[in-house]
Amino acid sequence: MNSKGVLAAVCGMVMAMPVLMPQAAAQVVEDFKSLSSNQYGEQYPMVNSQRIVRGRILAPAAHEVFLQINGINYPMTKEAEGYWTGDSDPLDEGNHYYGLVIDGATVPDPASLFLYGSGAERTQLEIPAQDEYKYALRDVPHGQIREIYFHSDVTGGLRHIFVYTPPQYDDDLTVRYPVLYLQHGYTENETGWSRQGRCGLIMDNLLADGKCVPFIIVMENGEISHQASGTGFGSLMTAANDLFPKILTQDVIPYIDSHFRTVPDIAHRALAGLSMGGMQTRHISLNYPGYFSQIGIFSGGVISIQDLNGNPEFKKDNKLTFISYGSREVENPRGQAPKETVSALKEAGINAVYYESPLTAHEWQTWRRSLYEFAPLLFR
Amino acid sequence: MNSKGVLAAVCGMVMAMPVLMPQAAAQVVEDFKSLSSNQYGEQYPMVNSQRIVRGRILAPAAHEVFLQINGINYPMTKEAEGYWTGDSDPLDEGNHYYGLVIDGATVPDPASLFLYGSGAERTQLEIPAQDEYKYALRDVPHGQIREIYFHSDVTGGLRHIFVYTPPQYDDDLTVRYPVLYLQHGYTENETGWSRQGRCGLIMDNLLADGKCVPFIIVMENGEISHQASGTGFGSLMTAANDLFPKILTQDVIPYIDSHFRTVPDIAHRALAGLSMGGMQTRHISLNYPGYFSQIGIFSGGVISIQDLNGNPEFKKDNKLTFISYGSREVENPRGQAPKETVSALKEAGINAVYYESPLTAHEWQTWRRSLYEFAPLLFR
Repeated sequence: MNSKGVLAAVCGMVMAMPVLMPQAAAQVVEDFKSLSSNQYGEQYPMVNSQRIVRGRILAPAAHEVFLQINGINYPMTKEAEGYWTGDSDPLDEGNHYYGLVIDGATVPDPASLFLYGSGAERTQLEIPAQDEYKYALRDVPHGQIREIYFHSDVTGGLRHIFVYTPPQYDDDLTVRYPVLYLQHGYTENETGWSRQGRCGLIMDNLLADGKCVPFIIVMENGEISHQASGTGFGSLMTAANDLFPKILTQDVIPYIDSHFRTVPDIAHRALAGLSMGGMQTRHISLNYPGYFSQIGIFSGGVISIQDLNGNPEFKKDNKLTFISYGSREVENPRGQAPKETVSALKEAGINAVYYESPLTAHEWQTWRRSLYEFAPLLFR
Repeated sequence: MNSKGVLAAVCGMVMAMPVLMPQAAAQVVEDFKSLSSNQYGEQYPMVNSQRIVRGRILAPAAHEVFLQINGINYPMTKEAEGYWTGDSDPLDEGNHYYGLVIDGATVPDPASLFLYGSGAERTQLEIPAQDEYKYALRDVPHGQIREIYFHSDVTGGLRHIFVYTPPQYDDDLTVRYPVLYLQHGYTENETGWSRQGRCGLIMDNLLADGKCVPFIIVMENGEISHQASGTGFGSLMTAANDLFPKILTQDVIPYIDSHFRTVPDIAHRALAGLSMGGMQTRHISLNYPGYFSQIGIFSGGVISIQDLNGNPEFKKDNKLTFISYGSREVENPRGQAPKETVSALKEAGINAVYYESPLTAHEWQTWRRSLYEFAPLLFR
């Protein structure tokens, strides 16, 4: 896939989407249960075994109400006592943003919990998945998600980051740990990986099951120029190409190495990201040698053979190149098929790994699964 | 104030409130600015120098829209292109929950950021205050807010807590710190103190200005029976009187003492809370001797002279009893005036301190200010 293809794919996901028509209704199985993403005590929204969501809102004086999921407006019907209810099409497993449209006003559903995603804090649907054991909250030892502000010399202001430390971090104060720097996508922010991405729970579960070594995860906000200028994706990708790598290498890494018990060398430092964060990972790993020996690009392009051949330092330093996509993303024709690219990288001597998340698109379920596959390969 | 009075006052605040009428409109000064609690890039809601809030929502097909703040419905007027706008009465300084009512549907405003409060995640208005320097985000050294899950032997499940560690916590791994256990109110949860309470920023600012000693803050969820049984305040206050103190003393304190560098003795352990958390503080400090030497009760009652006279252990152990209210709370007649009670406690030999937050009610601005006054008195 070329970078233009990636950009188009990313923009198609995150930009204001046209309102689509729902599919023809299937026979609905009446085994609905409340969602785990509901507010405390709320019965609706519910989901059934077909992964059809049924929403409900009290709007006694409204004339037209829709359940809006992934850019599709599903009509709701007025029932007794002023409640409106409506069903979606079957949804993919995992986390989806949604809202309600009440007489033309697009608003969050007061019955659901909130996340930051697609450019704003908004309501979400957590659709049950076959493999939710990967990110479920289990009664195992848990690490910490730490919220931190610190001064950046590069920007002259404060940066807001989240850091995951593994469960054993406070047991023995002489042990030092490797670090994964893990980036969100366009219109997401530094909260995404620990909330909808559930990176802390994924790590806790992998560690409890003996499937990976303990390491620290650092989550920064990569939407630098978007915040600074109020402009969109185009300028972001230009300016961020300079500014974000500078903040990461000159401010964040030194801050983490001086405030956490890290092993501060390239062998113990990895970089990964989803979508735009994957593009940033590619850009930084090719243009800022000496920092990262292991990289993950989730739904954000590939390291091509041309990249590799033009970059002997990357070839020398890189110990792992992990590329992943949701299967619904690679169904579409692309300039460069990622699976074939990974095969070519392997033949060229790179420890390259390809993963494809079954039946998911450009969304968090793809990235949760990607992290679950990527983490066990790190720092071995 | 007797406990019945406190309960009535608390319930009056947090229960579903009757819809009140707005006051007569004053001459509105047209110097509106966007609020800091708005979502990224959102111009509305705005606030002027009279602390009048102006809301706006796109609802082209709606027939009746209100801005709902503190139980009052302020009418909004349809303007060009389907936007509705409306003004509130002048509001008190600080944080207030609010929403919109669109053709009878009560929903969050998509233009604002979310908090958990009054029983749900909902939208907020952060009204500028004369003394917002106390909780502003300044470019000073910052501590960490750590999110943690751990196993509770008392409940047999997981507990979800937040822990503030001061900026210097990771500088010298041989230093140990005192701990303040800090509780939220009814229908709030363990997120309240670090989000709308801004306890981390308050501590960072006090420490940067040399006004207090560094200590750890632990924030638990005190709504035990509410969560367990789905029942309301009455059973909560009964069951929590047994369950919450058990969780705190048998699970939380040992967990904190074994996972953080604390000074694990009564001299270096304080307990405080707001509203219901203040009542829990009173109950625990009177009935669980040996744990806490310093207490803070914010808008949650007092330690009475009768309490003191019936409890020689409390009198012996207590080194600080801090009582506070918002001035708008103590305007109402109460069974026992807190200021006079504190004077009587002082005469009886207790190091008692009274603070009254000017022109605020039973709300977070009162409690932010209470923490700002309380923290410098601790662990001296």
